[in-house]
Amino acid sequence: MDDRLSDFQREVRAFTDARDWHRFHTPKNLAMALAGEVGELLAELQWLTPEESARVMGDPDAGGRVAAEMGDVVIYLVRLADVLGIDLVDVARAKLADSARRYPVGWQPASVRGEVV
Amino acid sequence: MDDRLSDFQREVRAFTDARDWHRFHTPKNLAMALAGEVGELLAELQWLTPEESARVMGDPDAGGRVAAEMGDVVIYLVRLADVLGIDLVDVARAKLADSARRYPVGWQPASVRGEVV
Amino acid sequence: MDDRLSDFQREVRAFTDARDWHRFHTPKNLAMALAGEVGELLAELQWLTPEESARVMGDPDAGGRVAAEMGDVVIYLVRLADVLGIDLVDVARAKLADSARRYPVGWQPASVRGEVV
Amino acid sequence: MDDRLSDFQREVRAFTDARDWHRFHTPKNLAMALAGEVGELLAELQWLTPEESARVMGDPDAGGRVAAEMGDVVIYLVRLADVLGIDLVDVARAKLADSARRYPVGWQPASVRGEVV
Repeated sequence: MDDRLSDFQREVRAFTDARDWHRFHTPKNLAMALAGEVGELLAELQWLTPEESARVMGDPDAGGRVAAEMGDVVIYLVRLADVLGIDLVDVARAKLADSARRYPVGWQPASVRGEVV
Repeated sequence: MDDRLSDFQREVRAFTDARDWHRFHTPKNLAMALAGEVGELLAELQWLTPEESARVMGDPDAGGRVAAEMGDVVIYLVRLADVLGIDLVDVARAKLADSARRYPVGWQPASVRGEVV
Repeated sequence: MDDRLSDFQREVRAFTDARDWHRFHTPKNLAMALAGEVGELLAELQWLTPEESARVMGDPDAGGRVAAEMGDVVIYLVRLADVLGIDLVDVARAKLADSARRYPVGWQPASVRGEVV
Repeated sequence: MDDRLSDFQREVRAFTDARDWHRFHTPKNLAMALAGEVGELLAELQWLTPEESARVMGDPDAGGRVAAEMGDVVIYLVRLADVLGIDLVDVARAKLADSARRYPVGWQPASVRGEVV
């Protein structure tokens, strides 16, 4: 099936195979690497106001750094999904369906402020 | 183009539109939500040995929780990419190409232990 | 020397000793637990505006949750420092001294926006 | 009262005052900065086995980096506690007391593997 994310997951697996890095790529280690990259993403946004963060891609330097950190997050996320044998879109779609039941359209308590999950 | 991740990104956008949550979905807020979900994923793996983490999907309970947390991570990641106007596969592929140059096959210094990026 | 943080670190160590949890408290595992608790702290603040976050302790419910998450962060941080043999105040003071040199008072480039480190 | 952590908290506040960085130091921004530093700490430990992580301070280079990251974590944590008006030791001690009730000594279900909180 044509699926860019699955194709990319195979590319990252090939990258890892070619360097014999499987022994380092346990779910535990990869989850830490994912968290580390998300931390770098936070660092790019931490001093910006929400409004400034909404315009960050308009700044070539800051926008490029944000895009690069997003790329790093994707790489470890697909690698982690690969070693776990998880289909990222399937598990996410299942969670979104749960949320649709939990937060019906038109029902908006004050405590709910944007939780997609 | 047929792309399951892009299709899903549109589903999450529609979920958000239907609930009028755009005002909460700034890149800054979504990056925090992404980090929060990654923290929940870490919590599922923190007390496991690397070997136990490699078998976690074999446990229906723990495996189901890991899959659910992965789904939550994907939801906020695609939502963040959507508001930033970033193509997740494109930015990740660009970073993997950088890494392929930085870590040539066959070159393995002691300090390099599995960094895909 | 009278030091409340060191006293508390000994209390957490005694808690761990009494339950024979040392085998789980490797630096790697404790760093993951610390990150998981910081993720829960982020979740309490993610949908708030910066201004709302500055008033969060004025809300008994939200403020109580923030205080509880801060407490969880401290517990794993002192536990991690204990197993590493690190004095938290000493290492932090050393980094603050570095920052004082790197960011002289009165020198404020546009790119510097609040980095204490 | 003689308290090294409170003394250090005042030093970080003075550092911030001298640079007029209060406007950037909202709880939301500081929590992101804290998470970013915890991510850097994870990055130092992510490829180590739990056993290697237990010996990391014996390596002058890696140990120095871990100590530096711990220092950065402390700086943002005390800064965050300062703007929130939270006493870190008090909130942590309250959570440890909760945990002592929740996990009585001698009670050890298979599912409990080292959770101090």
